[in-house]
Amino acid sequence: MFDHVAKLKEYIRCESVSADPAFAPGMQRCREFVAAMLRELGLAVEIVPTAKQPIVLAHRDGPATWPHVIIYGHYDVQPPDPLDLWTSKPFEPEIRGERIYGRGSADNKGPFLVHVAALARLLAEDPDLPLRVTLVVEGEEEIGSPSFHGFIETHRARLQGDLFLLSDTGIPAPDQIVITCGLRGIVTGDVEIVGPKSDLHSGLHGGVLLNPIQALTEVLATLHTPDGRVAIPGYYDAVRDVEPWEREELERLGTSVPQYQEFLGIPQFHTPPGFDPFEATRFLPTLEINGIGGGYQGAGSKTVIPSRAFAKLSCRLVSDQDPDAIWALVDRALRERCPKGVSMTVTKGHQGPPYVVVPPGRSNTPRDQSPVLATAFAAAEEGVTRVFGRRPLFLREGGSIPIIADIKRVLGLDSVLMGMFLPEDNLHAPNESFNLTVMGKGIEVSKHILKSLAAAKR
Amino acid sequence: MFDHVAKLKEYIRCESVSADPAFAPGMQRCREFVAAMLRELGLAVEIVPTAKQPIVLAHRDGPATWPHVIIYGHYDVQPPDPLDLWTSKPFEPEIRGERIYGRGSADNKGPFLVHVAALARLLAEDPDLPLRVTLVVEGEEEIGSPSFHGFIETHRARLQGDLFLLSDTGIPAPDQIVITCGLRGIVTGDVEIVGPKSDLHSGLHGGVLLNPIQALTEVLATLHTPDGRVAIPGYYDAVRDVEPWEREELERLGTSVPQYQEFLGIPQFHTPPGFDPFEATRFLPTLEINGIGGGYQGAGSKTVIPSRAFAKLSCRLVSDQDPDAIWALVDRALRERCPKGVSMTVTKGHQGPPYVVVPPGRSNTPRDQSPVLATAFAAAEEGVTRVFGRRPLFLREGGSIPIIADIKRVLGLDSVLMGMFLPEDNLHAPNESFNLTVMGKGIEVSKHILKSLAAAKR
Repeated sequence: MFDHVAKLKEYIRCESVSADPAFAPGMQRCREFVAAMLRELGLAVEIVPTAKQPIVLAHRDGPATWPHVIIYGHYDVQPPDPLDLWTSKPFEPEIRGERIYGRGSADNKGPFLVHVAALARLLAEDPDLPLRVTLVVEGEEEIGSPSFHGFIETHRARLQGDLFLLSDTGIPAPDQIVITCGLRGIVTGDVEIVGPKSDLHSGLHGGVLLNPIQALTEVLATLHTPDGRVAIPGYYDAVRDVEPWEREELERLGTSVPQYQEFLGIPQFHTPPGFDPFEATRFLPTLEINGIGGGYQGAGSKTVIPSRAFAKLSCRLVSDQDPDAIWALVDRALRERCPKGVSMTVTKGHQGPPYVVVPPGRSNTPRDQSPVLATAFAAAEEGVTRVFGRRPLFLREGGSIPIIADIKRVLGLDSVLMGMFLPEDNLHAPNESFNLTVMGKGIEVSKHILKSLAAAKR
Repeated sequence: MFDHVAKLKEYIRCESVSADPAFAPGMQRCREFVAAMLRELGLAVEIVPTAKQPIVLAHRDGPATWPHVIIYGHYDVQPPDPLDLWTSKPFEPEIRGERIYGRGSADNKGPFLVHVAALARLLAEDPDLPLRVTLVVEGEEEIGSPSFHGFIETHRARLQGDLFLLSDTGIPAPDQIVITCGLRGIVTGDVEIVGPKSDLHSGLHGGVLLNPIQALTEVLATLHTPDGRVAIPGYYDAVRDVEPWEREELERLGTSVPQYQEFLGIPQFHTPPGFDPFEATRFLPTLEINGIGGGYQGAGSKTVIPSRAFAKLSCRLVSDQDPDAIWALVDRALRERCPKGVSMTVTKGHQGPPYVVVPPGRSNTPRDQSPVLATAFAAAEEGVTRVFGRRPLFLREGGSIPIIADIKRVLGLDSVLMGMFLPEDNLHAPNESFNLTVMGKGIEVSKHILKSLAAAKR
């Protein structure tokens, strides 16, 4: 019998901080732990080197007629600092009440073990289970998964499965599971405006030239309408209409606008017409100024006209916006709106497309989806409804998980993102914990999904 | 015979850097040098303590019927860094060609000694010269003269003279003296915009609230018209009309617009209609954004919606704009233009009024000026014309020297600002030097001014 709590304790004890080279021994110990655990299940395991942190890749092979599920997890965790705010030590798991405390307990060690435990129990019950399973456990998620894209490109032949199954998203309450069906994409970039060739004395020269900071504010101020939309022609052209079922689903979430406003600490929301705050983050793109700088920023004053000023931008994208196409629009708008008297440089940063999967049967627009994927969604809904006593919600989210879009783009595969962690789990913060009741129920659901997949026709 | 070159060498050897406490012994030695030099002339000298650097105050008293000139100088210098760019050592004066090299040679030790030498020679020729003279030599000019205002307030009774005479401004060429007749005032301040109570994840929350950086750019972008004027009602109400003689005087300066553009390194000028670049800096006010900051400014990207963003502003003012009144207009415009959804804080910084003195007889608008001041201007013109072979130009400048406005406001006195240093003198930079030919001629002019003042009627 796979003791998921005992395994999770062992797993948390591996000090696997990817961001800090001092934790290299803990990283190594951690992937060896994962590899050994998966070998115990009878899987063929290899540790695949990357430029940074190796990826644990495990297979349970079988005939091509068997459905093939790929389970994703990450063994790296956030740094534990600040240590003095932890009640128990971050890498010494401690159970208090129904929670297990420790760095990585909820992100992503506990949720990943949900699926490992389900698989272990299922294989114990039926060693001949007609299901191919691949597990991909990376060690760079907390530093942006820089090796993941190359990994799936290189190993695409071995990743020709039916779908990805993972739990690395959240739920609003212990009895309300959310299956995330969409994530926003992203494209980032910088804009810099250069005026005079060096910083100038604002007394001697003030009044003869366009100040680069002023020029920058004038350009940036054109990027939004007063009602909160992005004021760039064509920006919304590829945005999918929100379907009625999506708004209905979101209403069932029962989130409170006043509570959200209090959480943000803002006097009022600023959402485009026709979208409430919960809709706006999920269904609309943004163009955000993430940073701005230029001239003197210290105490007091320095009466300088700076040579340059810059801003850092990012666009959150929704289906079916293309990062390259959107950045081309932004780039052109910035250049067209740059006043004379200064020069402008626009530099594209990183990007990832938006992701959306329509749960089979929900959309009014029929889509060509694999029957195995449909089985997975149906099993998730059945399983969650039976085990948690309430059906899951199928919702898009505002954040971006670039690997999900990569998986879709490179491998053509959709993902079933079964949320497992709660707001109070303190991800990335001191006293991270994971709810063991949710974990136990999650294992039941995952087992139901895997069992259903084994019975599906490819 | 007062040997001005020998005195200047001694003066430069005093390592009088006011900004760096390590130079305290040099500061003390320097003011003792000045005090001793002035005592040698027969003046009553005292060293007046201030919160930071004491001020050397010297008097040559006489009957109230004698005109009373106050000569200003500063004994502190800029730090000499970077030392490795100096050809000779900064505090070991060296004469090469017609220049003397050393920190402070041009700012302000050489130009101040012009007037001391003139006085010394005049008193040697005529010990009974009917002229009261006060010398005020401060040690905080390079750190913004923080004690000067309090000093003249406290000692106002002893500073009831007819005018100030000083040389701490520039000239464009060795044979073209400029008498500075106006300086811009200044008022500075900060504006901060606060949105959410903490920095937010732009994926989870982007699209529901007004980004403080965006709000800031939208406010700042309203502050200027496309043609370069300040777009705040009433901003120009108190600006004096430029008189025809001022434009004619500026034309005689013979400065080159293309050369200025090349110096600045800008593709085009951006001056309000009706003003060329040389006029705009002298005759018009500005509203400049000296700095801006908010959010992430490092390498790469951080997809944050910051809690706050700020900008640092300064207004250069011309007569007869009042710093308080102008800042009230700016403050109101900023607040009125702040969009809903964020909060704004506007904080006033430091300020100084503009200064202007109309050279007697030049303006079409007769002004009530003292006959002694008229004598000083006439003598400066005569002296410069005779000694330098070309009459001086009477010009306003774009920079601010707050003490000149303070002197006018507190004591009611105008200043004769006789420019002495050249662009190539490298003020505040390595290899600072002073042209000894200019210095020698300057002494002749100063002697003529002082002699003429002694002959004037109060």
